[in-house]
Amino acid sequence: MRNEWMSVDPYMRLVLTGQEGFVPQKRPGEVMDGAAVGIVEASNDPALAPGTAVLSANGWRSRFVARADQLTPLPALDAPLHWHLGLLGLTGVTAFLGIERVLQPQAGETVLISGASGAVGSIAVQLARLRGARVLATCSSPDKARWLIEQAGVDAVMNYRLEKLEDFIAREAPDGLDCYFDNVGGDMLDRSFGLMKPYGRIGLCGAISQYESGDYRSGPANFFAAIEKSLTLRGFNAFLLNPDDSAGIAGWLARQAAQGAIASFETIIEGLENAPAAFAGLFEGGYPGKVVVRI
Amino acid sequence: MRNEWMSVDPYMRLVLTGQEGFVPQKRPGEVMDGAAVGIVEASNDPALAPGTAVLSANGWRSRFVARADQLTPLPALDAPLHWHLGLLGLTGVTAFLGIERVLQPQAGETVLISGASGAVGSIAVQLARLRGARVLATCSSPDKARWLIEQAGVDAVMNYRLEKLEDFIAREAPDGLDCYFDNVGGDMLDRSFGLMKPYGRIGLCGAISQYESGDYRSGPANFFAAIEKSLTLRGFNAFLLNPDDSAGIAGWLARQAAQGAIASFETIIEGLENAPAAFAGLFEGGYPGKVVVRI
Repeated sequence: MRNEWMSVDPYMRLVLTGQEGFVPQKRPGEVMDGAAVGIVEASNDPALAPGTAVLSANGWRSRFVARADQLTPLPALDAPLHWHLGLLGLTGVTAFLGIERVLQPQAGETVLISGASGAVGSIAVQLARLRGARVLATCSSPDKARWLIEQAGVDAVMNYRLEKLEDFIAREAPDGLDCYFDNVGGDMLDRSFGLMKPYGRIGLCGAISQYESGDYRSGPANFFAAIEKSLTLRGFNAFLLNPDDSAGIAGWLARQAAQGAIASFETIIEGLENAPAAFAGLFEGGYPGKVVVRI
Repeated sequence: MRNEWMSVDPYMRLVLTGQEGFVPQKRPGEVMDGAAVGIVEASNDPALAPGTAVLSANGWRSRFVARADQLTPLPALDAPLHWHLGLLGLTGVTAFLGIERVLQPQAGETVLISGASGAVGSIAVQLARLRGARVLATCSSPDKARWLIEQAGVDAVMNYRLEKLEDFIAREAPDGLDCYFDNVGGDMLDRSFGLMKPYGRIGLCGAISQYESGDYRSGPANFFAAIEKSLTLRGFNAFLLNPDDSAGIAGWLARQAAQGAIASFETIIEGLENAPAAFAGLFEGGYPGKVVVRI
């Protein structure tokens, strides 16, 4: 296998915490892994002829040898190869789960999406708007805020380094939030509980703000508000889906993109040698859209 | 108004924490309040003739004067007066919400109910069994454990002072839990996350184990498992229901009781002067079933 593209994702930080969770821990000297798209160079399996484009979990390397059952031929979708790591990969499927299966925001409802300029967030904001919901977003820089309004079509945006969430919501959703799509955990999740309407729904996607500290497992400080307000909190983990379900979702996303209903936003990093910096950058404010490394 | 019965409930502890929440704080010298059932002694409102039995929020007193719109005539259900504080009151409605609207355990599923011998718990276990689910229960004494098996019909019970939850679940539900009805919060809720099946549901009813410490708002230590396992957590608060909805639920519960499908379990404390001790006792292991005070 020759890898052409690899993904860097926030969840990968969890293999470096020394705490077992839903990803096995890596030790110094072991090779990182993660989603990658590559081309079969030589094969003993007639079903995987040389030249076949496949998805694997063997990122962070330029070439590798694998058994055929560890490789997934890419579905025949009219899309660039690297979209299978983003819009049509784990990233897009995760955003889909959060909006279409968990939160299901309706026209007339207001949904807040944190980490909105990131890989999952930039797809989630588009899917929420497609459903007719009003979309509020948080991000970490004026550039991203502008980008979210002009490119991703969000209704209002807050730079969390400049403004308090309570002030933003008081201005943009004075009756409170129907839905919150949480990509960041930590302080933002804590505060969101106080800003939800009764019977509000919170989708739990990730907790990137907590991954660096090592204390990413503990719950929000204002958790009791879930009882007071009859809130629903639902986690979602695309790793748990069966392959047919994931493939169906990817096909739906590809059709939406082909019709121009949603767009893929990406930051492309050139060269495997720059993958560590690309990965570390996710925790330093990140990049707009999905970050992929061209190997 | 002459009060005949009053309720003591764990949530009342929250008016004594000095922290504003869904119940306003009481200061020393103020009168406690809570659900009570009484009889109209004298009235200027023809709709509330002397002798009418009514529900009020004016517990913790033997007599009081109130406006008619603060009193709710009891529905015409064939039930003892004090059931309107328990099975047919906030307690029963809360258990109904947790089982019938939030968790909805199915035949073949396993549901764990903590604080199972308490007011809400003793109704929740019966409703879960009515739906055909396998019911596991936790409690704090051998007497209550026996009572839960023999009277309330649970399938297996654990005394949390003698056994670890992990050992109990490994024995009784080695594949994990489909549902957890959490009446206690704290350590039990923390541990439950690790014992849920993927896509499991947790109903958040209360956190009695945390009310005394004052730190009842903070979330469970193992909250991140909600993402890893795609768990659903839903709080429920019967105070948020509209009166028609509550009345409909109470009517349904009364019909189940009339048919012998569920029973009301109670501990009756005699005398208003014993109400403080009855209330404090809820936090010292509690009593079987609903605790009501005969005034």
